[in-house]
Amino acid sequence: MIPRYSRPEMVAIWSPETKFRIWFEIEAHACDAMAELGVIPRENAQAVWKAKDVEFDVARIDEIEAVTKHDVIAFLTHLAEHVGSDAARFVHQGMTSSDVLDTCLNVQLTRAADLLIADMEALLAALKRRAYEHKDTVRIGRSHGIHAEPTTMGLTFARFYAEMDRNLRRLHTARAEIATGAISGAVGTFANIDPAVEEHVCKMLGLLPEPISTQVIPRDRHAAFFATLGVIASSIENIAIEIRHMQRTEVLEAEEFFSKGQKGSSAMPHKRNPVLSENLTGLARLVRMSVVPAMENVALWHERDISHSSVERMIGPDTTVTLDFALARLTGLIDKLVIYPDNMLANMNKFRGLVMSQRVLLALTQAGVSREDAYTLVQRNAMKVWEKGADFKTELLADPDVTAALSPAEIEEKFDLGYHTKHVDTIFARVFGTK
Amino acid sequence: MIPRYSRPEMVAIWSPETKFRIWFEIEAHACDAMAELGVIPRENAQAVWKAKDVEFDVARIDEIEAVTKHDVIAFLTHLAEHVGSDAARFVHQGMTSSDVLDTCLNVQLTRAADLLIADMEALLAALKRRAYEHKDTVRIGRSHGIHAEPTTMGLTFARFYAEMDRNLRRLHTARAEIATGAISGAVGTFANIDPAVEEHVCKMLGLLPEPISTQVIPRDRHAAFFATLGVIASSIENIAIEIRHMQRTEVLEAEEFFSKGQKGSSAMPHKRNPVLSENLTGLARLVRMSVVPAMENVALWHERDISHSSVERMIGPDTTVTLDFALARLTGLIDKLVIYPDNMLANMNKFRGLVMSQRVLLALTQAGVSREDAYTLVQRNAMKVWEKGADFKTELLADPDVTAALSPAEIEEKFDLGYHTKHVDTIFARVFGTK
Amino acid sequence: MIPRYSRPEMVAIWSPETKFRIWFEIEAHACDAMAELGVIPRENAQAVWKAKDVEFDVARIDEIEAVTKHDVIAFLTHLAEHVGSDAARFVHQGMTSSDVLDTCLNVQLTRAADLLIADMEALLAALKRRAYEHKDTVRIGRSHGIHAEPTTMGLTFARFYAEMDRNLRRLHTARAEIATGAISGAVGTFANIDPAVEEHVCKMLGLLPEPISTQVIPRDRHAAFFATLGVIASSIENIAIEIRHMQRTEVLEAEEFFSKGQKGSSAMPHKRNPVLSENLTGLARLVRMSVVPAMENVALWHERDISHSSVERMIGPDTTVTLDFALARLTGLIDKLVIYPDNMLANMNKFRGLVMSQRVLLALTQAGVSREDAYTLVQRNAMKVWEKGADFKTELLADPDVTAALSPAEIEEKFDLGYHTKHVDTIFARVFGTK
Amino acid sequence: MIPRYSRPEMVAIWSPETKFRIWFEIEAHACDAMAELGVIPRENAQAVWKAKDVEFDVARIDEIEAVTKHDVIAFLTHLAEHVGSDAARFVHQGMTSSDVLDTCLNVQLTRAADLLIADMEALLAALKRRAYEHKDTVRIGRSHGIHAEPTTMGLTFARFYAEMDRNLRRLHTARAEIATGAISGAVGTFANIDPAVEEHVCKMLGLLPEPISTQVIPRDRHAAFFATLGVIASSIENIAIEIRHMQRTEVLEAEEFFSKGQKGSSAMPHKRNPVLSENLTGLARLVRMSVVPAMENVALWHERDISHSSVERMIGPDTTVTLDFALARLTGLIDKLVIYPDNMLANMNKFRGLVMSQRVLLALTQAGVSREDAYTLVQRNAMKVWEKGADFKTELLADPDVTAALSPAEIEEKFDLGYHTKHVDTIFARVFGTK
Repeated sequence: MIPRYSRPEMVAIWSPETKFRIWFEIEAHACDAMAELGVIPRENAQAVWKAKDVEFDVARIDEIEAVTKHDVIAFLTHLAEHVGSDAARFVHQGMTSSDVLDTCLNVQLTRAADLLIADMEALLAALKRRAYEHKDTVRIGRSHGIHAEPTTMGLTFARFYAEMDRNLRRLHTARAEIATGAISGAVGTFANIDPAVEEHVCKMLGLLPEPISTQVIPRDRHAAFFATLGVIASSIENIAIEIRHMQRTEVLEAEEFFSKGQKGSSAMPHKRNPVLSENLTGLARLVRMSVVPAMENVALWHERDISHSSVERMIGPDTTVTLDFALARLTGLIDKLVIYPDNMLANMNKFRGLVMSQRVLLALTQAGVSREDAYTLVQRNAMKVWEKGADFKTELLADPDVTAALSPAEIEEKFDLGYHTKHVDTIFARVFGTK
Repeated sequence: MIPRYSRPEMVAIWSPETKFRIWFEIEAHACDAMAELGVIPRENAQAVWKAKDVEFDVARIDEIEAVTKHDVIAFLTHLAEHVGSDAARFVHQGMTSSDVLDTCLNVQLTRAADLLIADMEALLAALKRRAYEHKDTVRIGRSHGIHAEPTTMGLTFARFYAEMDRNLRRLHTARAEIATGAISGAVGTFANIDPAVEEHVCKMLGLLPEPISTQVIPRDRHAAFFATLGVIASSIENIAIEIRHMQRTEVLEAEEFFSKGQKGSSAMPHKRNPVLSENLTGLARLVRMSVVPAMENVALWHERDISHSSVERMIGPDTTVTLDFALARLTGLIDKLVIYPDNMLANMNKFRGLVMSQRVLLALTQAGVSREDAYTLVQRNAMKVWEKGADFKTELLADPDVTAALSPAEIEEKFDLGYHTKHVDTIFARVFGTK
Repeated sequence: MIPRYSRPEMVAIWSPETKFRIWFEIEAHACDAMAELGVIPRENAQAVWKAKDVEFDVARIDEIEAVTKHDVIAFLTHLAEHVGSDAARFVHQGMTSSDVLDTCLNVQLTRAADLLIADMEALLAALKRRAYEHKDTVRIGRSHGIHAEPTTMGLTFARFYAEMDRNLRRLHTARAEIATGAISGAVGTFANIDPAVEEHVCKMLGLLPEPISTQVIPRDRHAAFFATLGVIASSIENIAIEIRHMQRTEVLEAEEFFSKGQKGSSAMPHKRNPVLSENLTGLARLVRMSVVPAMENVALWHERDISHSSVERMIGPDTTVTLDFALARLTGLIDKLVIYPDNMLANMNKFRGLVMSQRVLLALTQAGVSREDAYTLVQRNAMKVWEKGADFKTELLADPDVTAALSPAEIEEKFDLGYHTKHVDTIFARVFGTK
Repeated sequence: MIPRYSRPEMVAIWSPETKFRIWFEIEAHACDAMAELGVIPRENAQAVWKAKDVEFDVARIDEIEAVTKHDVIAFLTHLAEHVGSDAARFVHQGMTSSDVLDTCLNVQLTRAADLLIADMEALLAALKRRAYEHKDTVRIGRSHGIHAEPTTMGLTFARFYAEMDRNLRRLHTARAEIATGAISGAVGTFANIDPAVEEHVCKMLGLLPEPISTQVIPRDRHAAFFATLGVIASSIENIAIEIRHMQRTEVLEAEEFFSKGQKGSSAMPHKRNPVLSENLTGLARLVRMSVVPAMENVALWHERDISHSSVERMIGPDTTVTLDFALARLTGLIDKLVIYPDNMLANMNKFRGLVMSQRVLLALTQAGVSREDAYTLVQRNAMKVWEKGADFKTELLADPDVTAALSPAEIEEKFDLGYHTKHVDTIFARVFGTK
């Protein structure tokens, strides 16, 4: 977790304070359930809630752990210092450390998912706004980095919207994947604790009981979760690379927002670097790198080994914090991205109408010219454009063999950009629903 | 794609014959739609269907491609040889090669997903059958590879069932991810083709129209698809490793099925290697290795670059073929896995009752013995077991300080395996539903 | 292994014919060594060499394997059909299948490495030739995709050369990593075979004896090997992306070679797609995807488990074949890459001298102008360029505050490209040695 | 970077204090070189060294960076506060931020490599000591987790030694990969700074000048570096898994050291979990996960983009810190690993001599018994062992058909463990050199 790529709300989810707070809630709710079952006295369960508003003292817990060498015991010892040893003696009864640790991890991941969902919704709002703003801003579409046919900037934003909307749905699914808890004992048999305790604790924490656990919650859930974050990161990279391309000197169809005061901007006005989108490209790699270890974590030995734990201590916080930061950064970037429609037109016209050669070829054949002849006609005019910088339409209008087949109006029509944008509203309706 | 790890039905999905068949269907349905729109003559569209039952000649198409250097054009040329150039001249009108290629890829992936879903259902059936068969077969649960508390073999099968059932749901989601088609032209604007064509073709092929495409279908879909296969592979590894552990010489709680006639089995009866589950461990790595490149494929340049194509030519077939084979192999393995309940009991008793020490400790404290004294009592008897090979229960029954706190019946009860299996039915009901 | 991304020489290394040939040599050399030790009769050892020039019948061996279920036994059975059962009975004595399989794999990988080394040398020759050809071809250097300072195309080729030269050295190291053999028996103790046999076989095959093996050669060697191929692939991607950038419509500083006859080229002369370098980008991902599974293969259980085997059956051929193809494709691409020096100059001048603003700023301060004043001077002239399309040098020469500090000659000097290329020879000498 | 998996010396390499110290040295040495060239006054260069022993104030630099938005400028501003603005004005002249940042990163990675090399040497010493200690401690070798033939614990340690010794050599190579520096300006042309400055700075910092750089040092170097760390991590996993297997309840051939006082050890003496080696398994995944992003970092755009930077901010510290911790943990684990030779013998004898069946079979055939008959003889005695728990040797000695072919002494000899250990000294000499 790197401070400069972190936002406080997500960082807070992974703080020791939050962790102990969740542990407390798990233990206290478990006591309630055990009291309800008559396993422990109701007043002891109630007494535990005295610590409801306590800020647990992380340093003190660390101090105890240094002696006991066991984090959950250290916490329980500290809890006893708050609620009294009489109430404390029934806390955690019949439970295993993993019941607390694993359920807590999933609470944290679920909260992280909620933040990421909110991030995504903000990003979608920005993309949608920019899509409508530039619905009709024509630019050249490119395949292989080479000019192909016209499209619009709005369609670019709209496809990013559609992609991120799919990611939002994936994220909801991923959240459901890890929104389970388990209080099932050392090997998952509930030998020492009634399943009703698990049910109550999960209900109070907004989780579903894991249908069958061992000492731990099965890790295919976490693998699916991190895999989803990896897909989202790849989509962030997809948007980032588009922006980086748009901003490169020779293209300059967009620029990341550059505040007026930013040093150097006016003495070197050409040197505005797309550092945010480059940074997002790197952050995408960081999010993605957790996917494979999360998958390697699935195959634990028998009812559990602890190999997954160190991996999750790292990728749990790092991946969610980095993705949260990346989504927020991308939203800001999209929100303020400076678009240059004039440059879009200038770029499109770089080869003076040549991008329309395909349409002209088609029109000629539809007008009855043979495929070979049509090709020859287009070619001889195209080469004048390519080699001598002529204007394609002008050349066509001046070529009697062409005008024998197509009227000037028909030729003009082939250069009409409206031909390419006529279905934009249809596509928008597909993506955003009927306006 | 390695023949020994391939099954014919999945391999067939990726054959050139299948590919050309799908291309034909895309083109023919597109002609129908265009005829319906009045863009091409209805009789020409109908004439295309003359090739409905043709086995396309792959060698002939390759021959043409060697000249044209373009696979779709080669196919169309060959198609014309079957339906006549008059019908053929309207085929593919206004379309882009990618319209055909990308839609075809998704048809193939969808069919592959269907096979994988069937594989998974067979695996689930095997796991369920073995789970009920061994619902009450007690074995020791292990954390960290060390004996913990008793569980049952049925619970082991049941958790694999639950995990694979989640994977089945993920696979359905993944199938939906890639069940889209696009006939939207060079940059996705439908400039030269009506969206109605896309709608018709998709409907006939069992796909949904991609809401917004560029020259290609967005690759976050494929990334999500392959990521799901990676999660499934990790679960296969999880089961494989359990079996490998069960079969190791010192454990011997299960063996992969070994046909009587298999050479060497009776002269070296101890040397039955879990080669299938080891193989599955390796196959899991192979499936998983496609996840990262599939994610790297997402960030294409502008309206498409072709960097994803070579990756998909490899991982499309290889990953689905390998996973199909692995699922089938795993199903056979589970189906015929030889379970040794006697060895399970013998293993559990390796340390003559010591696994119950925790329960005895708890019982002593609940009987009013102080935590320190209880610990001392358990410890001194445990050490006799550990160091001298005594039997734990016998020692406890002979220790007057223990019997002062617990009656012989109470001590006996602590060694009752029923204590550990009392919730097995509850867990089975959660996993399999009420019987 | 995909035919269209394969070259025959590398494919041949992985054919069954080659494999059986290597198996034969291992067995025959082992017989020689055993005869030398007096363990088997010398005439039997000699008789084995009768099969020296035999083309082994793969179909026949497969047929036998279908019965014996064991590949090495099937081969030995077939060998006996050639050399007679009398000679054959001493073949493989005291050996384990893995002795043959693992040593053979390393022979194949070593040969593959030799081909890759030759590929790399051809690539280096092409890069060097193009580097000297364009040593002084000035183009703009770009950071963040934005114009920075001038550099030369020769320097671009030279840095690719230096990078690939490092890769060649890495490849030699990687070759040494896997150039070992082992004939050490079931668990590597040489219980049934003398170490002298291993020494002889390795010597005859150009390998070193593995100092300590188990049933298998340790897999950290293979992990290091495939990791190196992954680094090389990443360098291929690095070059490919440079070319893709150079060819994009707005930049057009280079184009992949396009044969005159190639269809469509002259009717759409702008539409020449950098498909080779895009393809290389994808191939790089394919090569790289073997790195993680090769590393996962290292941790085998005890003296071996067979999980690595399926992985290597796939990545052994696929990764070396793909990399061989990619290196050859890249060499051809570099060799014939069309460079457009005029476009390089035109691009550099896109903002009419603005890239020199930094140098002018520095010159003004060195001429005694305060940092703030210098900045103001540069800024006001730069903004005329940026906003009104003026020429930077012209504006500076016309600005009396500027000319008060710098003479026209001094201003001119700031725009001299020689300033930027003065150390090119030094750098070339570092990279290529003194000419 | 997780505190519990970190050691202070490696963490210190990545502290802001260390970074600024290295920045200072780069700048000060560069000033010396520029003074030597006559580019700046010698006294100014000397004055910079006034800050030689300064502890730079990180908070103050952060404060300045909050205003300037540029880390290097913030540092230089703070440096001026120490050495005076007169001396400071020549600092960094003609240099680019990346000259400082990239050279600094490589100094840090080089130092990290030095620590890792020392870690590895300590590990090798521990492995060698344990290897000789248990050179003749016989245990069963296992393939596929199944008993194969005897080997010794010393050979196990010796092969880990050999593997880690290879890793040490790889690490030296990797260190050389990243021990370069670059002071070459905005696009690597030395336009504004003489190559002599780079040479001097590199020499003083123990680096070699990068033969050709752009704005940055080429990232194939870093990819090769992190790939090497990934291989080392995989070897750590290899050792960790062996120990985890040895410690599992049914095997119990070794245990991680367990201090007497550790709670719970004597009441549950069977429950000693191999948590260190499980933890190492997880840490290996964390180290390995940096390999792919480091490779994805290679393909930067033109003379640099900044996508690599965020990746390196994370994996630079995290990967080296984690690997350093893992190597140290592994060394301690090996050093104190408790070996149980008696259990090794007991395990080997689990199937009462059956592991020798292969040797007996061979002896019978060598004694002239036909292959089929020999097989029958071995089989019928083996099955008594397998099914009724008989002792293999006893059965053979009592079988007249066996004793007709082999004398009792010959039969005894087949069960002699010395047969399997006779080449241990040879192997040790290969691994450790002649004693």
